[in-house]
Amino acid sequence: MEQFSIVGKDVPRNDAVAKARGAAVYTDDMTLPGMLFGQILRSPVPHARIINIDTSKAKALPGVKSVITGKDIPKVKYGNWRLFADTQDEYALAVDKVRFIGDEVAAVAAVDKETAQEAVQLIQVEYEALEGLYDIDASTKEGAPAIHDYCPGNVSVNRKIEYGDVEKGFAESDYVREDTFKVHAVSHAYLEPCSALAQLDLDGRITLWTSTQVPYIVQCLLASTLGMRENDVRVVKPFVGGGFGGKMELRTWEFCAAFMAKQTGRPVKFTLTREEEFLTGRRRHPMTLHSKVGFKKDGSLVAKDLRIILDGGAYNAMGPTATFLCGNFGAMLYRYPNYRFHGQHVYTNKPPASAMRGFGAPQSLYASEIQMNMAAEALGMDPVDLRLKNAQVSGDKIPDVATISSCGFKESIERVAEMSDWKRRRKELKPGQGIGIGCYSFISGGVFNWFNTQYPFSAAEVRAFSDGTVHLLSMASDIGQGCDTAMKQILAEELGLQMGDIRITSADTATTPQADLGAWGSRVTLMAGNAVVDAARKIKEQLFGALSARLNANVIYEMECKNGMVQPKNRPKKAIPFGDVVAMVQKSKRGEPLIAHGYYTPRDKGLVTPAFGFGAQAALVEVDRETGKVEVKQMWTAHDCGTVINPRGVEGQLAGSIQMGLGYALSEQFVMQDGKTLNTNFLDYKMPTAMDMPPSAVEHIDTYEPEGPMGAKECGEGLASPTAPAISDAVYHATGYCCKDLPITPEKIIKSMEEGA
Amino acid sequence: MEQFSIVGKDVPRNDAVAKARGAAVYTDDMTLPGMLFGQILRSPVPHARIINIDTSKAKALPGVKSVITGKDIPKVKYGNWRLFADTQDEYALAVDKVRFIGDEVAAVAAVDKETAQEAVQLIQVEYEALEGLYDIDASTKEGAPAIHDYCPGNVSVNRKIEYGDVEKGFAESDYVREDTFKVHAVSHAYLEPCSALAQLDLDGRITLWTSTQVPYIVQCLLASTLGMRENDVRVVKPFVGGGFGGKMELRTWEFCAAFMAKQTGRPVKFTLTREEEFLTGRRRHPMTLHSKVGFKKDGSLVAKDLRIILDGGAYNAMGPTATFLCGNFGAMLYRYPNYRFHGQHVYTNKPPASAMRGFGAPQSLYASEIQMNMAAEALGMDPVDLRLKNAQVSGDKIPDVATISSCGFKESIERVAEMSDWKRRRKELKPGQGIGIGCYSFISGGVFNWFNTQYPFSAAEVRAFSDGTVHLLSMASDIGQGCDTAMKQILAEELGLQMGDIRITSADTATTPQADLGAWGSRVTLMAGNAVVDAARKIKEQLFGALSARLNANVIYEMECKNGMVQPKNRPKKAIPFGDVVAMVQKSKRGEPLIAHGYYTPRDKGLVTPAFGFGAQAALVEVDRETGKVEVKQMWTAHDCGTVINPRGVEGQLAGSIQMGLGYALSEQFVMQDGKTLNTNFLDYKMPTAMDMPPSAVEHIDTYEPEGPMGAKECGEGLASPTAPAISDAVYHATGYCCKDLPITPEKIIKSMEEGA
Repeated sequence: MEQFSIVGKDVPRNDAVAKARGAAVYTDDMTLPGMLFGQILRSPVPHARIINIDTSKAKALPGVKSVITGKDIPKVKYGNWRLFADTQDEYALAVDKVRFIGDEVAAVAAVDKETAQEAVQLIQVEYEALEGLYDIDASTKEGAPAIHDYCPGNVSVNRKIEYGDVEKGFAESDYVREDTFKVHAVSHAYLEPCSALAQLDLDGRITLWTSTQVPYIVQCLLASTLGMRENDVRVVKPFVGGGFGGKMELRTWEFCAAFMAKQTGRPVKFTLTREEEFLTGRRRHPMTLHSKVGFKKDGSLVAKDLRIILDGGAYNAMGPTATFLCGNFGAMLYRYPNYRFHGQHVYTNKPPASAMRGFGAPQSLYASEIQMNMAAEALGMDPVDLRLKNAQVSGDKIPDVATISSCGFKESIERVAEMSDWKRRRKELKPGQGIGIGCYSFISGGVFNWFNTQYPFSAAEVRAFSDGTVHLLSMASDIGQGCDTAMKQILAEELGLQMGDIRITSADTATTPQADLGAWGSRVTLMAGNAVVDAARKIKEQLFGALSARLNANVIYEMECKNGMVQPKNRPKKAIPFGDVVAMVQKSKRGEPLIAHGYYTPRDKGLVTPAFGFGAQAALVEVDRETGKVEVKQMWTAHDCGTVINPRGVEGQLAGSIQMGLGYALSEQFVMQDGKTLNTNFLDYKMPTAMDMPPSAVEHIDTYEPEGPMGAKECGEGLASPTAPAISDAVYHATGYCCKDLPITPEKIIKSMEEGA
Repeated sequence: MEQFSIVGKDVPRNDAVAKARGAAVYTDDMTLPGMLFGQILRSPVPHARIINIDTSKAKALPGVKSVITGKDIPKVKYGNWRLFADTQDEYALAVDKVRFIGDEVAAVAAVDKETAQEAVQLIQVEYEALEGLYDIDASTKEGAPAIHDYCPGNVSVNRKIEYGDVEKGFAESDYVREDTFKVHAVSHAYLEPCSALAQLDLDGRITLWTSTQVPYIVQCLLASTLGMRENDVRVVKPFVGGGFGGKMELRTWEFCAAFMAKQTGRPVKFTLTREEEFLTGRRRHPMTLHSKVGFKKDGSLVAKDLRIILDGGAYNAMGPTATFLCGNFGAMLYRYPNYRFHGQHVYTNKPPASAMRGFGAPQSLYASEIQMNMAAEALGMDPVDLRLKNAQVSGDKIPDVATISSCGFKESIERVAEMSDWKRRRKELKPGQGIGIGCYSFISGGVFNWFNTQYPFSAAEVRAFSDGTVHLLSMASDIGQGCDTAMKQILAEELGLQMGDIRITSADTATTPQADLGAWGSRVTLMAGNAVVDAARKIKEQLFGALSARLNANVIYEMECKNGMVQPKNRPKKAIPFGDVVAMVQKSKRGEPLIAHGYYTPRDKGLVTPAFGFGAQAALVEVDRETGKVEVKQMWTAHDCGTVINPRGVEGQLAGSIQMGLGYALSEQFVMQDGKTLNTNFLDYKMPTAMDMPPSAVEHIDTYEPEGPMGAKECGEGLASPTAPAISDAVYHATGYCCKDLPITPEKIIKSMEEGA
């Protein structure tokens, strides 16, 4: 493994001071002269035909500058799967029907927030109620009304995978088990509610500042919905207070801000309230998972048949990707010689589910990890040993998906078993205590070009200056995960500079280089990082050329950038400061600045991802046998994210993942009634707080991913998966209650114990 | 001459709508979270040593976050002439002395404006008064105190030019006249007072938004005064409400905003008041000009000896350039076989004079044009004929300066004589009426690298997209003169596109390409325009290559971009849309975007400029013989700016020039008493208003400048020169009063008429 100077070192995040000081400017912090305030009218009914909308009273209210409905806008449907236009099922404002409580019906822009709110109340909508379908059974039952006319039966996506001979596999198995799991919806609950501010540019073009993970995707989709050309729209990402998958699509307020800015000639800003976010916001897909799995007596996996039905809510959103991926995740982690998957994405009259951290993995892996634990028990094996027996290793091929290159999965399982003193604890804990295990694998970005971009997946521009500094321009989006810092580290490492030598400008579709697909699927470090390395190497080529000319030696030196110098490798006596060599290059080109562009698109990497992260996690819990209350006492994690670029950043991802996993397992859920979300604030939606966080130990497994920048791969989402199954397994260990129906509530535990007693 | 599609057409300026709607964001319109407000303490005395500054009371005032004096800052002098460090004579805050009323002594940053203003009053400064020197005679008299210790005698710049044999020339002349002229200071009076807002970046770097003509120069000088590296400072130019030469240096408030932002970690904004602007702002150099000029009987010029003493005020500012240039302008317009110049820049205890539209030409040409008129009378010739006899023509060489390439000077004189019916009017006007003439030549940017930049003088980046649009990035500064629009026209023309196809991003030293020396010396159209053409041609090279490959013809076609298409020249049947050819290029490069950089630095163009503009102007006046009031009834202008890029823009420059020339000739002046400016508002400082503007006719002389983009050269400053001599000549024609001491006031006219009577 290479030795690094900056990569792998703890560096402070470059946004830390600004955020701590309150100097960070988020979209809602921005104001522009003459700015209008937007407000959305949302459907109060779950499923209805719109008979009439009367906006006259709203329009007559003094201070109101624009009122728009579906009638006023271009009838262009949008959705991220541009390659398959039939998945694009959403209009910015309802055109004929409303499909969930909160569906966007009309929008108002007014001189102040209060006027906009008042105007929205004055819009009169006449609905013809339709039957509301609130779960997959209702939606798929015979005779259920079509939520979208184009889609009778309400199954919008079918995805199948099959390899080997599954039936033969089951026939040859010594032990087969079949389980049905239900996992629930949870909220991204990002701290910054969505906000978008649009302004008409000097040339009648649109600039949109928005809280998004995907500036480039928003640019393209916004342009098409507005009927403009792609580059007539500029999208800028200010500071973003978290996304977790909830901000990776074009959204109604982004469209409305832009449309109304064009219409009125004035800047227009929309900011959602927390209540709107909870009531109508995207969420993690609830799924029903039927999983049948067969083993040999010795624990070898033989076959798996996985059927998943996703409750997608009213629109596809990122559902097609989740459907696609949860089938892949079902075949990950362990060697399944025979595998069959059928995923179905079903419309219901609820707020759309979409991408959320893990993107299908937390659901899919919950089922497979719980089944592994149950199977281990049935086979009389330790769950750790059963996993080690079947674990994927480097070089394994997953048909149609990928060849696994770096893989520290077995080491992760072994390490976490050691760290947690697994064998002893699994045997010796006192009653009410339990230890459990969960594992994960995750992608490092997607290979499949569903967005149908013409550009490289990631791009970087590097400008090197004679003052010894460098400017990195990247369209990658720091949404709080810290990628700006990681990109700077990668560049500093490659050029032998310090962090303080590098300025970064990122995520502005007009000025940063085309393109970057955004911050999702744990793609940024690997893909944008590779683009940075590519650009840096082109810079070095020029520096090395100039230095070679200057040295005029009769030895052909290998050159390097190190410690702020450019030098023949290991010959610091011949070193010349980085900036001076930049000046030499410039002088050789009549003063032209030294600039290079780098790109990355995964090639020849199968259908899913260029690299996989792996890991294992153990949880120690104590269950109050009177109240059923679960307390997580300790978490241990060993994971393989390839080279660790920024240890602090990775630990932050881990802490955040555990927090989300805790909530997913134990406390978070949307309380729904007839399609309506009832808990729409942080008091009623029970997210774990800092006080709920257990102690946590982590070890990084040392691997080097050949496809990643300096050996790095994903670390941001994989860890979202193991916590819930580890806790669930620990609860089972403590109480005998095996949860197949998340979340694990005290009521369920007590009931199970009562039944078992 | 080439035929153009977009160049030469009236196009609306791309900032017109935003400005008309009030949507344009100027620096003072900006706010940032936690922003502090700055205020400067200025010297109330014209010349004094600072004994002590007590800031304790100011610092103790609640809400005050920073108080700084010269003691607190790095002792780095700055000034634009980096190549000659001894011309750099200014500190951001007074270190030992104050040198004019208004000199910057201390600065305060506080939570609001009122607190900052109150705090400034609490700073106690003890001065030891020194003799104030208010004019060049006082400053250069024996025993005058040195305003700067390094400069006894107070002459900070000496500039000499000599060629031919001037004494022999005078000896051989038939007619020699010698005159002394005094020209006065006037204000730039830009509508937007100076404003600067600085913020500490994520990496401890500085971003400065400032109302400036020279973002790159401010970047470099600010970095050096802060002790930072050049690229640790980013300068962004928001909308700017005029500059006219008054915003082309690093200024105190820019430094203080940046220094205090670094110190406090909070954004800091300074905005000057109109009173501060008038009291302390830069202004046009007052000069005393001794000019001796010799002619043959037939009117041929033989020799000229020009001595100019510039009253520079307390600091050099752009005085070295003005001193340099007024010697060059003295030898322009006419053929002077023998020429001698001595310019001296003298310190006085007044606000520094600096660059102002024309940059030495309005002063130098006032003297030479009035002398031409007087000589014509003495030689019995018509002033028009005398000019035509001596006028420079294309191919003329000015020793050490340049070879004149395109030159429409004679045509300008002839045309303006025709337009104004000169011959008839000069003879037949009724008493009290007069017609006068004035001519000019001006540079199209400077050749001499006094700023000592390592970069090309101008740069452009062009990104071409498959949607048929193009993005132009340029560091050139639109300060209201409309260069963003002109650059777009040049690019549209070169690429065969429409204005609506082009987006421009300009004047941000971090994201637009290095470098551009700024908006001064009428350099932008030619230099930045050439860089745009260079980049566009590199784009075309790639488009033509891709199209050639696609057509696969056995004919080697000349290619062209025309009407939004790329095609073999004159073969529209083989045309493919621009965007489609861009997509072809992209596909040939794995999706990489199509980007090109262009540059321009004048080479082999002498010491001054790559190209000269020329023109002639006539004024018709009526003088009230009772009151001496001058009314300008009509202006006629014929001028040669090469290819007219944007006729509306050129006409705007002309209207603005006439307005400034009117004020310079007739009404504007600083009323000073013991170094103090007394008229510090628009009521007392008499600028002509829209109501004062005379009718104006203009003709563009059709020339093509080979060094300019599409044949263009300067048009923004040359026209600042002819109005005052034309009006002065007309007043002489009407009244017999020959003004050698601007401005022309009713008192002077009446007095002259009374003396003459």
